[in-house]
Amino acid sequence: MTISFHHHLRDGDAVVNEAVGRIAARGFGDLVLAPTALFPTHDPLVPLVESGVIARIEGSMNGSLGAACTRGAMRGTAVLRSHGGRARAVERGELPIDLAIIAAPAADSFGNANGREGPSACGPLGYALPDSIHARQVVVVTDHLVPYPCAPRSIAGGDVDFVLLVDSIGDPSRIASGTTRLTRSPVQLLIAEMTASIVEEVGILREGFAFQAGAGGISLAVVARLAERMRKRGIRASFAHGGATGVLVNLLKEGLLGSIVDLQSFDLEAVRSLSEHPRHIESNPFDSYGPQGRGCAASMLDLAVLGATEIDLDFNVNVNTHSDGRLLHGIGGHQDAAASARCCIVTAPSFRRRIPIIRERVTTVSCPGEVVDVLVTERGIAVNPRRPDLLERAIRAGLPVKPIQDLMRAARDITGVPEDPRFDERVVAVVEWRDGTVIDVIRKVESETGSGKDEAI
Amino acid sequence: MTISFHHHLRDGDAVVNEAVGRIAARGFGDLVLAPTALFPTHDPLVPLVESGVIARIEGSMNGSLGAACTRGAMRGTAVLRSHGGRARAVERGELPIDLAIIAAPAADSFGNANGREGPSACGPLGYALPDSIHARQVVVVTDHLVPYPCAPRSIAGGDVDFVLLVDSIGDPSRIASGTTRLTRSPVQLLIAEMTASIVEEVGILREGFAFQAGAGGISLAVVARLAERMRKRGIRASFAHGGATGVLVNLLKEGLLGSIVDLQSFDLEAVRSLSEHPRHIESNPFDSYGPQGRGCAASMLDLAVLGATEIDLDFNVNVNTHSDGRLLHGIGGHQDAAASARCCIVTAPSFRRRIPIIRERVTTVSCPGEVVDVLVTERGIAVNPRRPDLLERAIRAGLPVKPIQDLMRAARDITGVPEDPRFDERVVAVVEWRDGTVIDVIRKVESETGSGKDEAI
Repeated sequence: MTISFHHHLRDGDAVVNEAVGRIAARGFGDLVLAPTALFPTHDPLVPLVESGVIARIEGSMNGSLGAACTRGAMRGTAVLRSHGGRARAVERGELPIDLAIIAAPAADSFGNANGREGPSACGPLGYALPDSIHARQVVVVTDHLVPYPCAPRSIAGGDVDFVLLVDSIGDPSRIASGTTRLTRSPVQLLIAEMTASIVEEVGILREGFAFQAGAGGISLAVVARLAERMRKRGIRASFAHGGATGVLVNLLKEGLLGSIVDLQSFDLEAVRSLSEHPRHIESNPFDSYGPQGRGCAASMLDLAVLGATEIDLDFNVNVNTHSDGRLLHGIGGHQDAAASARCCIVTAPSFRRRIPIIRERVTTVSCPGEVVDVLVTERGIAVNPRRPDLLERAIRAGLPVKPIQDLMRAARDITGVPEDPRFDERVVAVVEWRDGTVIDVIRKVESETGSGKDEAI
Repeated sequence: MTISFHHHLRDGDAVVNEAVGRIAARGFGDLVLAPTALFPTHDPLVPLVESGVIARIEGSMNGSLGAACTRGAMRGTAVLRSHGGRARAVERGELPIDLAIIAAPAADSFGNANGREGPSACGPLGYALPDSIHARQVVVVTDHLVPYPCAPRSIAGGDVDFVLLVDSIGDPSRIASGTTRLTRSPVQLLIAEMTASIVEEVGILREGFAFQAGAGGISLAVVARLAERMRKRGIRASFAHGGATGVLVNLLKEGLLGSIVDLQSFDLEAVRSLSEHPRHIESNPFDSYGPQGRGCAASMLDLAVLGATEIDLDFNVNVNTHSDGRLLHGIGGHQDAAASARCCIVTAPSFRRRIPIIRERVTTVSCPGEVVDVLVTERGIAVNPRRPDLLERAIRAGLPVKPIQDLMRAARDITGVPEDPRFDERVVAVVEWRDGTVIDVIRKVESETGSGKDEAI
């Protein structure tokens, strides 16, 4: 059977391990897990993957589970989807879910649920919405039962079969990081400043623009830099989209944002703001990213600032695997935001731990270069030749624009040419585009140590 | 093609006539209208029915359109469904909608919409929800465009194809009646008092009970009488469900209600309260009545107080036709509340305009007697023999309980035995139970005047 979970409790989740452990203890096997994402706290599932109780995972794996997948420990083939692509697959029956187990910080006995209150408050619960609508059985698990009707509701009680009251669904201190601090890394700050400059110079930074940035160090610094420019020019953004952070909350309070459209809260300020600020609006993957709706919020974005583990000479982006071939991250909303925003800027340092970020060919295509417009590194800006309009403006503004090949070479002058990992023939995971097309496969990494444990599977 | 509309603007709606008129003017014919309900303001559609431009109506008809249907003016056969039954039929594809035209008091350019603000604010928009999700094309028509995102949203922009800005979608003074006044009719007040008494005596009136009553004179008086008893006994209701009125809003403010779960606002106090009071919660036909969900709010009701145009010796209820055979009302949520609540009480005077309400056999079965528990008239209370528990308690409490046959006879002693209307063989409408089963048909009424206009169709 296929069992699904959401990731709004992030690394503080206490439900996935408990539920899967109990299901396994009852002798069920051949399980397919369909989480929206798994985190390091879910590393205890690795032995269940190795023993075959979990046959495969269709969902984002951050950390050891992904690594286990790339060393061949998973019997079946993993499927990686973007947030929008997963919602679409669930809606269309391509990812049929037998049992959705939905951890809910607040729920009533009827099943209406939200993430706004209670000891495990996490903000939005939208990533569980497709599952609540389409799964054959839906269980809401809560540690905070409230009087009917729990409102506003993220999950509709009419879609819920059972409500289970437990002592705790998570560790609040790990659900969100508490406060999101701005980076002090000179490299990250330089990238952020250059990113803000190109955003300003190519004409994106105008009254009512809409943007999405992540919660990483560079992204937060980009937002801070954009805010400075907005103040100076006396303009405000119509909305910020995607994950919410205290940095965005402060801009909302300051009046620089019309709204925050929030898919997931990354820190406690964002969780609080969702409950308190009338223009901090909860979203879900249909509203935000739905690739087969009549539109989605991402399609109104003027700007998406996204990360990468690798980017190649065709601007293809890898966010899933590292250059050693190991699967360590999910796609998140990367595909959806990149494909939908009018301008998609990827930010990354030229190298991390002496591993260059720009490659001739990415290890894994998570997002095709045709929807990536700009790369900003600390050594310069590369503009996708598909966007001569942006290129011309950036050059005219005197920004340090360079061919992406030159940026690759500059990094290699320092790091040397990296060695490619050795892959086995076996496909361990497929990467779907948001419409369901398979755009790449991930192969088993040949073990250098030849660890018996890995090979025994 | 099938075109749908909602009825939240009630008799103040300005969109239906305009839209259908324009579609007809372009030469489209054979139209199927699928409104959630039509009101006297939509009487101008009668000529389009007579000319065959509107082939049939699947939806509630209040007034002249229903009368036209029963005089045989409609080419096709009308279908009458409850609010829950309609939502189910739309969801299951039994009522496929080509074009949903959704009048929205507030909307953003993306299509997110609600009924909470703007010059035509009407409260909830939930009856349009099934159409917004399932119609092939969805148009939101608004006279009040707000910045994205319109929130909270009743209609999701991702489901909307087009947003149309017009001068006015309705006449605010007729959308809701302004204030809902309590009846001064001695008969209605007596019925209300007896209803409150039986509710109290059979044990329904206890801490945390949930109820639904309508917006009619008797219903509002029942609520007022229940409130008096609640104050006296120091108890409060968990929630009131269904249509919202100023009477309920005052109870909510007073603390006698935990929440109002609101499907449609019947007056302006209710409209305002929905926006202002955090425990005045908007609902929709899936959440409230969904007959094929994993549950609906109505299934948590301890009490439903409902009306009737007729009731018969088997407790079958007619809410659609009058005793002259004319179709003048929709089913509304009657079936859904009656079937779902633990106790369903029908209130009615023994006769109206010398037409007795209790019949040997109702003209139309809108709701089968097996889900109707009690009838309260000013001449006494009849308890359905299927509920010996209620009967025993009512008798023990000394309430004026009588066999329903006796109540019928008592009225007939005054009014005489009414003459039955003469029906033609032709079926002009079918009545569906909330699960889609046809439970009765409505036949053409033989015209006494033999008006040529009617017969020409």
